[in-house]
Amino acid sequence: MKPVGPIPSGYETIGGELAIGGKRASELVAEAGRTPLFVYSRSQLDARIAQLRAALPARVGINYAVKANPLPAVIAHMAPLVDGFDIASSGELALCQAVGIDPARISFAGPGKRDDELEAAIAAGVTLNCESEGEGRRALAIGDRIGKAPRIAIRVNPSFELKGSGMKMGGGAKPFGVDADKVPDLARSLIAGGAEWRGLHIFTGSQALSADAIIEAQGNVIDLAAQLTEAIGHGCPKLNMGGGFGIPYFPGDEPLDLVRVGTALADRVAHLPDALAQSALCIELGRYLVGEAGVYLCRVIDRKESHGVVYLVTDGGLHHQLAASGNFGTVVRRNYPSAIATRYGAEATEEVNIVGCLCTPLDRLADNAAMPHAEVGDLVAVFCAGAYGASASPTAFLGHGAAAEMLV
Amino acid sequence: MKPVGPIPSGYETIGGELAIGGKRASELVAEAGRTPLFVYSRSQLDARIAQLRAALPARVGINYAVKANPLPAVIAHMAPLVDGFDIASSGELALCQAVGIDPARISFAGPGKRDDELEAAIAAGVTLNCESEGEGRRALAIGDRIGKAPRIAIRVNPSFELKGSGMKMGGGAKPFGVDADKVPDLARSLIAGGAEWRGLHIFTGSQALSADAIIEAQGNVIDLAAQLTEAIGHGCPKLNMGGGFGIPYFPGDEPLDLVRVGTALADRVAHLPDALAQSALCIELGRYLVGEAGVYLCRVIDRKESHGVVYLVTDGGLHHQLAASGNFGTVVRRNYPSAIATRYGAEATEEVNIVGCLCTPLDRLADNAAMPHAEVGDLVAVFCAGAYGASASPTAFLGHGAAAEMLV
Repeated sequence: MKPVGPIPSGYETIGGELAIGGKRASELVAEAGRTPLFVYSRSQLDARIAQLRAALPARVGINYAVKANPLPAVIAHMAPLVDGFDIASSGELALCQAVGIDPARISFAGPGKRDDELEAAIAAGVTLNCESEGEGRRALAIGDRIGKAPRIAIRVNPSFELKGSGMKMGGGAKPFGVDADKVPDLARSLIAGGAEWRGLHIFTGSQALSADAIIEAQGNVIDLAAQLTEAIGHGCPKLNMGGGFGIPYFPGDEPLDLVRVGTALADRVAHLPDALAQSALCIELGRYLVGEAGVYLCRVIDRKESHGVVYLVTDGGLHHQLAASGNFGTVVRRNYPSAIATRYGAEATEEVNIVGCLCTPLDRLADNAAMPHAEVGDLVAVFCAGAYGASASPTAFLGHGAAAEMLV
Repeated sequence: MKPVGPIPSGYETIGGELAIGGKRASELVAEAGRTPLFVYSRSQLDARIAQLRAALPARVGINYAVKANPLPAVIAHMAPLVDGFDIASSGELALCQAVGIDPARISFAGPGKRDDELEAAIAAGVTLNCESEGEGRRALAIGDRIGKAPRIAIRVNPSFELKGSGMKMGGGAKPFGVDADKVPDLARSLIAGGAEWRGLHIFTGSQALSADAIIEAQGNVIDLAAQLTEAIGHGCPKLNMGGGFGIPYFPGDEPLDLVRVGTALADRVAHLPDALAQSALCIELGRYLVGEAGVYLCRVIDRKESHGVVYLVTDGGLHHQLAASGNFGTVVRRNYPSAIATRYGAEATEEVNIVGCLCTPLDRLADNAAMPHAEVGDLVAVFCAGAYGASASPTAFLGHGAAAEMLV
């Protein structure tokens, strides 16, 4: 038996079924007209933002990293709740613009920005988080050509990292950002070249559950930003401190102690180095804002036994849930939180393997999991599906197409 | 320094550039109008089929597993070259039908076929590779309802496996197929229920480079099929022996010895068990037919150094090449065969990391690889990109969109 991960709080049971936003899973599927279906909960999104606002010092803004969930309805819902948006491509810029996000609220990071992407961003007035000398030169040249000063911050590759993070984005040689020691020269040359100087972006890692690690990284980020700002000599209009706040996916994962992070950050902010005294501050969160607000629902298509092992074969799979299948950024597969949505809260009476419909042994949703007895037609729920699910999976694989998505 | 995998034969150099189908990489990109670009070579596809026809006994047909590369132009090119098509979804059925493939040449495997998929396949006259008792019942009921006898083969979960295969599809409990000991009863009940009996499908694994392993598996498949056919008592119109032929991706990989496989198979076929004397035989290949015929071309957007390490940042990445990035079905990342396409054959003079444009450390194309010096604007080629590339990658991730694809 392999345990499943912890189901996020905030979900309820109605009539023996998982309910999201006050509606039963089967009702939501009926509304969508089909499975598989991603359901994202407005109330969960709101609750998470409220927790953050309560825990963090008021001076620290919250940016939404659109890559985590670029569904237009989600972006639109976030618009009045967050202070800014971080994008990673001109595709994401177009999504934000279509939703009506003011480009002045948007910053654009990414190590391989094409010229046409730089141009779209500069023309719109988006802040570029500049990743290299070469990108800086290209941005200035494009700005000259189109007659608009590019708004530029520098993304710093710090020499420290976010300890215990799922994805390390700093520490040593990296394709992201500019090595800290090269930042002052680059900043001065960009400013001299006509850029509107926007400050610094220091992203140290993601998906950390340790408050201590985040507190340490944030302290290091502030210190580094202050040193760099002094060396640059033009102030730091804005400091994007990165993100890194993780969510529990797996058995044994403990939620991040947000109150401790917020308390430590408030203390830091109350004693900011002089160089940053006038700086706007923000953190950048994607997964932490939307991950636990999403549930992936798929239907049991077959129930079969092979050599005494029970398989629930669903119409879902890794083409929508690559990370949950264990094939994206993980070495050892562990079970995401999951449940039989149509028998929610019922006693677990058997051990089953929940698999997807793809013809590959990689397509697993829950291995050797204890579940109530389910039959063909039952709905399976995979939780923590709000971030890097629908948009970070190989949708075209085997021709089953995309899942439906709805915000409730 | 980490070596890159072996570049497949059949590619040439024209004017210092990689050429595919007689055209330089830069010419192909100009034709496509953009990078990233998948280029698939007709002559490589033709050459591979010719090798197979020469090596395999004439009695053994070749099916193309559409999932490996579902580009309509590729399916259309394969139509006159292969004997049948294997599909994994009604989406793939629609692709084949749009190209004009006779449904009588198509068989459909997949552990989670939905009712609407079964109906589309039965209505079209496609052979279902039935994966469970439940699916068999559903197929008969749908056949009754639409007044058409379903054409049914049974996919067998054998008790043996293809040794050394990248993906094991048999051996022990599996979500795929019907345990061998349950096959005779199911077959008889399907036949009694009005199905048109089409025989057996026994798939033991994929991506094996050992001729011995394939020879052994094929022998076991024939023996098992003969036993089952005797027990069923209705002959075996067709035996799909599965695939499993691998291609070299990584340093040290040796190509499959096709001649040995063909010789052994010819011997087996010359001495078939009586139960299979009248059976049509086929193998089912995807990756082996198209994998080495494809090249992924992307452009260097930035060249940067971080702590003395050179990064070539491209406009490509794992959103098109998930497997090459090391994030799909592999535990230890190794380098796919890759090269600077616009300096093809030039001497390697430096060690570089070739990365994609996505803002994640997972997005790597070649680590610590020896390459000729490349600049912004150069093209990078990743080989072995013909199978499970464009269609098996998270295209929507970070909003950069799909790559272009062309058959030349």
